[in-house]
Amino acid sequence: MYEMGVVYRNITRADGDVARKLGALGTATVHEAQGRTGLLKPYMRPIYAGAQVSGTAVTVLLHPGDNWMLHVVAEHIRPGDIVIAAVTADCTDGYFGELLATSFKARGAAGLVIDAGVRDVRVLTEMKFPVWCKAISAKGTVKASLGSVNIPVVCAGALVTPGDIVVADDDGVVVVPAASAQKTLETAAAREASEGEKRAKLAAGVLGLDMYNMREPLQKAGLKYID
Amino acid sequence: MYEMGVVYRNITRADGDVARKLGALGTATVHEAQGRTGLLKPYMRPIYAGAQVSGTAVTVLLHPGDNWMLHVVAEHIRPGDIVIAAVTADCTDGYFGELLATSFKARGAAGLVIDAGVRDVRVLTEMKFPVWCKAISAKGTVKASLGSVNIPVVCAGALVTPGDIVVADDDGVVVVPAASAQKTLETAAAREASEGEKRAKLAAGVLGLDMYNMREPLQKAGLKYID
Amino acid sequence: MYEMGVVYRNITRADGDVARKLGALGTATVHEAQGRTGLLKPYMRPIYAGAQVSGTAVTVLLHPGDNWMLHVVAEHIRPGDIVIAAVTADCTDGYFGELLATSFKARGAAGLVIDAGVRDVRVLTEMKFPVWCKAISAKGTVKASLGSVNIPVVCAGALVTPGDIVVADDDGVVVVPAASAQKTLETAAAREASEGEKRAKLAAGVLGLDMYNMREPLQKAGLKYID
Amino acid sequence: MYEMGVVYRNITRADGDVARKLGALGTATVHEAQGRTGLLKPYMRPIYAGAQVSGTAVTVLLHPGDNWMLHVVAEHIRPGDIVIAAVTADCTDGYFGELLATSFKARGAAGLVIDAGVRDVRVLTEMKFPVWCKAISAKGTVKASLGSVNIPVVCAGALVTPGDIVVADDDGVVVVPAASAQKTLETAAAREASEGEKRAKLAAGVLGLDMYNMREPLQKAGLKYID
Amino acid sequence: MYEMGVVYRNITRADGDVARKLGALGTATVHEAQGRTGLLKPYMRPIYAGAQVSGTAVTVLLHPGDNWMLHVVAEHIRPGDIVIAAVTADCTDGYFGELLATSFKARGAAGLVIDAGVRDVRVLTEMKFPVWCKAISAKGTVKASLGSVNIPVVCAGALVTPGDIVVADDDGVVVVPAASAQKTLETAAAREASEGEKRAKLAAGVLGLDMYNMREPLQKAGLKYID
Amino acid sequence: MYEMGVVYRNITRADGDVARKLGALGTATVHEAQGRTGLLKPYMRPIYAGAQVSGTAVTVLLHPGDNWMLHVVAEHIRPGDIVIAAVTADCTDGYFGELLATSFKARGAAGLVIDAGVRDVRVLTEMKFPVWCKAISAKGTVKASLGSVNIPVVCAGALVTPGDIVVADDDGVVVVPAASAQKTLETAAAREASEGEKRAKLAAGVLGLDMYNMREPLQKAGLKYID
Repeated sequence: MYEMGVVYRNITRADGDVARKLGALGTATVHEAQGRTGLLKPYMRPIYAGAQVSGTAVTVLLHPGDNWMLHVVAEHIRPGDIVIAAVTADCTDGYFGELLATSFKARGAAGLVIDAGVRDVRVLTEMKFPVWCKAISAKGTVKASLGSVNIPVVCAGALVTPGDIVVADDDGVVVVPAASAQKTLETAAAREASEGEKRAKLAAGVLGLDMYNMREPLQKAGLKYID
Repeated sequence: MYEMGVVYRNITRADGDVARKLGALGTATVHEAQGRTGLLKPYMRPIYAGAQVSGTAVTVLLHPGDNWMLHVVAEHIRPGDIVIAAVTADCTDGYFGELLATSFKARGAAGLVIDAGVRDVRVLTEMKFPVWCKAISAKGTVKASLGSVNIPVVCAGALVTPGDIVVADDDGVVVVPAASAQKTLETAAAREASEGEKRAKLAAGVLGLDMYNMREPLQKAGLKYID
Repeated sequence: MYEMGVVYRNITRADGDVARKLGALGTATVHEAQGRTGLLKPYMRPIYAGAQVSGTAVTVLLHPGDNWMLHVVAEHIRPGDIVIAAVTADCTDGYFGELLATSFKARGAAGLVIDAGVRDVRVLTEMKFPVWCKAISAKGTVKASLGSVNIPVVCAGALVTPGDIVVADDDGVVVVPAASAQKTLETAAAREASEGEKRAKLAAGVLGLDMYNMREPLQKAGLKYID
Repeated sequence: MYEMGVVYRNITRADGDVARKLGALGTATVHEAQGRTGLLKPYMRPIYAGAQVSGTAVTVLLHPGDNWMLHVVAEHIRPGDIVIAAVTADCTDGYFGELLATSFKARGAAGLVIDAGVRDVRVLTEMKFPVWCKAISAKGTVKASLGSVNIPVVCAGALVTPGDIVVADDDGVVVVPAASAQKTLETAAAREASEGEKRAKLAAGVLGLDMYNMREPLQKAGLKYID
Repeated sequence: MYEMGVVYRNITRADGDVARKLGALGTATVHEAQGRTGLLKPYMRPIYAGAQVSGTAVTVLLHPGDNWMLHVVAEHIRPGDIVIAAVTADCTDGYFGELLATSFKARGAAGLVIDAGVRDVRVLTEMKFPVWCKAISAKGTVKASLGSVNIPVVCAGALVTPGDIVVADDDGVVVVPAASAQKTLETAAAREASEGEKRAKLAAGVLGLDMYNMREPLQKAGLKYID
Repeated sequence: MYEMGVVYRNITRADGDVARKLGALGTATVHEAQGRTGLLKPYMRPIYAGAQVSGTAVTVLLHPGDNWMLHVVAEHIRPGDIVIAAVTADCTDGYFGELLATSFKARGAAGLVIDAGVRDVRVLTEMKFPVWCKAISAKGTVKASLGSVNIPVVCAGALVTPGDIVVADDDGVVVVPAASAQKTLETAAAREASEGEKRAKLAAGVLGLDMYNMREPLQKAGLKYID
């Protein structure tokens, strides 16, 4: 399925400004705005609370227990990119730590999303380098097998194409295809705009039942109240 | 097993004062006081460290990927209630976020225990609205299927009857049946009272072996010391 | 496999000074220094962020749902020891809480590593008593079956012999056999010494590809760049 | 939550004839007939393919690693009963093997449903004694702690009251409350009766889209066909 | 990420003859032949031992607990197709049983691969309708939400494009992109051809060490023999 | 913890006759006979029902995704040996298939126990080569990193020393240290001898309660009967 041993040097990145605006809206709103799709599996968690970032995807495909390609991908990071790392089989090893974070940061990376483990999490937290991963492990890796850079990858159950927009926060990680990013932003912003008014009503004690006009459909569906 | 599509409007809540006192004693003590029963599965975790609450249960039964009934249950929350949400099949979707939390809080809910996922956890944490759940996920839900409100439900392996007392903290969630709440409180309080003295002895270097007179039973059981 | 019902009173502890120095280097460095071995499974997590400790192992073998032997092992703790608790079958019960922590601390224990659950985590955190475990659970345990103290045990997939050095931090838990501790320390220290320079280079924008001379081996392995 | 250390000698069993008929309809049909409720978690699997049974529930509550109460419950089995065994905490130990199966069979038990492990599965298979469980494990258990017999229990996420009907086959285990068993049987039988005709139509190439008149609702919901 | 509510009626299927030949070679050989990629996660298991099939993919995207689109996809099955069903969130419900299998079979489907649960497995086995899935569950589903048919989907971690070749047997499920199917077949066939001779040598007692000339590279890598 | 890159050519094997006799008694009896220890985690399952074997352990330590050392260990197999394969981190890849099985069988191996995945399970089943493993996966492995042969390893949670006796059947895998094998055999045989009489009594309807004289200790423990 995957093309192996190749590095695509030129990719078309989605608009960084759209990425920033989607990031401000957050994963839940963006995920809803694109029809409840694009979310990575919920086992992907930030290494520290409050981590929040958005940017353009550069992708890398790794082998289990082998982080060689993380050094290869570093060269192709541009400011504002988020590295999306997929692995060809389930693995919890610690592929990424302080040194690679230092290098990624120097290249301008905004964060890392890796379907595997990382280490040096105390230092990464101090560096404020945000990482979403499925495990934390001191287990190191070898540098022996070729994967690929900037091919489309499946990361934690979601397809990520290089240049896509990635939004990540405490609620998880969402991928927004470059082609539909502008439209998703508009839908998400509209959704967000309507939330303030709703929040105020609900805070005042208005019920969602009334605000969303649910009483009639509930009755039609057959809901019975028993005193 | 479950009665579907019904909302019981009138439930008998356990004494709120007993709920408060049990909350002060904490889940571990309460759980021991009722014969080591009533604990929800340990995969139920608070969304922020230090969350601690007790109250009376209002229950809701949900379908996978469908949070319609959370709007229905909101109407039946009274100040001091904790909403206990069960799902008919395993699901990690984010059923509950900022808007529902605003509504629940306005109704006086003390917290939420849900055998599924929630989202907007950064905002929920800022609101200090405590939630115990099995997943965090930006994945939204539909509003299509009827469940029930205030029927007995199995939540994370424990039977919860509406009106029961719920105690939740960093160690998990315990259910105390309304009928035995007073007796459980007395046992728990007595247990707690004896702990201060024990703590002092242990802090002074006395061994549990001596304080609990374990040396003889250990010897009888055949424990051998080898130098 | 295990000798049951025995307590070895005299064990030979590794050098406490070596333990301290290994602790300062951290689990990732120590794990690499001994050939990427000795790591406990990554499901072992600290109960609070920033927990960090090293010391000499005293071991205890427990049965599922039974913490009797934790009282037995307490008597054999010396200042600087870390208690390593293994269980004969998978169990998430809360074997250890405030009272035992008070006792262990009074005996000089530096921490606990247990392949099971603990409780009272808020209090343990306030006490700054570091624990690595696989679950948090209010579920208590009985005191009915004999295990053993200071026999070699398999804890979370790693063999721990009494007196071995244990290093634990946010990245996990590593065991260093007493016999090879001095050598591992030297290798780890050398590794650490070289990291400062590397970090500086990477921070300045030098690529790992160049710093580690990876371009040639990557080319030999067949990596293709596509523009 | 659970009453501990009690054995209820007299329970009211649902009609054995209804149990037999529900068994013939199978778990999927019965589960649908009671509004898609009553199913135990799908991790409960038969120890051999083709196992299929129905009967009336006698319940037993066990502690982790302790099978004492299985000997107590044996005395209360009547011909046609299925033993439903719940455990107070997750445990995979092998609670049940050849000897207990011989005893249960002699008492007339139709099968066992246990939210834990069993052993001697080759012999149990030869005996054609059907068991649904969550693990197979040679690990034995102790006989030290009291549980209860014939109290309502939560088994694999479902509430089972003594005397309820249990239907189990390759697709899982469903509980039917005694009170609604007759009505569930009627609904299930009607459902089954309509399936033969549907099967014939579908086998002849008629589409579910047409047989169930789904084309219009799909169009209303907005489904678009693209050539 | 996914286009929702659309059905692509015209897809280009890979050559059925190539699919048949790849099927005869088996998943392990095919997976190796395309550079160890294209394998679905190993939790995907056949519902009966010996299931073995290959064909062209028609894809369907489902929502958790909702099998409506399985009726929609049925219309687009052609003889020799394998239905690949993905779900937008983790779900173990039984989406597929006897009736749908009857319909799929009547349409000429060669099998089903579904990242969720199925039911009626005894009947499906008797029908010899092969299914690979992640769970078996009597739990039924609703028909309420639109997904899509014949869009690219991520199923159990692998990207499947409509028309791709799918090979499935006891070892799992592999996807072969239509574009590279012929080349993968050649590589796989060559690999297979060389295996007979190897098998004969190994059966005669020749060691892989010698047959693959591994002794020198092992020595270079530093392997030490100790008597 | 592990010595890496070494092969111990000379190991002392336990008595093959004792291994055969322990095998005939089965894992459950042997496990009980050595104080309920020595069992590998219950996730280790045979690839076909009815697999049953015993023999002497030769051990091999592997890296994730790398099966090079399986070729190295093959040279050290003697008739009656069982290969015990441990991995330095969790991995489900298919390390072992038809070719290696052919080689192992030619060397006289009685079976394989591997804490990872295998493939070609249909062929292995036809060959009647018994394997216990934690996954089945077509995913192949590389040959790049050195592990070790015939060092003590932790496999699925149990310590295995080269030359130990391994007993495996449908209930799991048990390790018996060479030093205590004769004593364990005697205890196990005595246990087995007493089972026939017990079985006959239980089959005749005698209760375990009476046969084991449990009524008095149950009463002492406080069990209450309620009519």
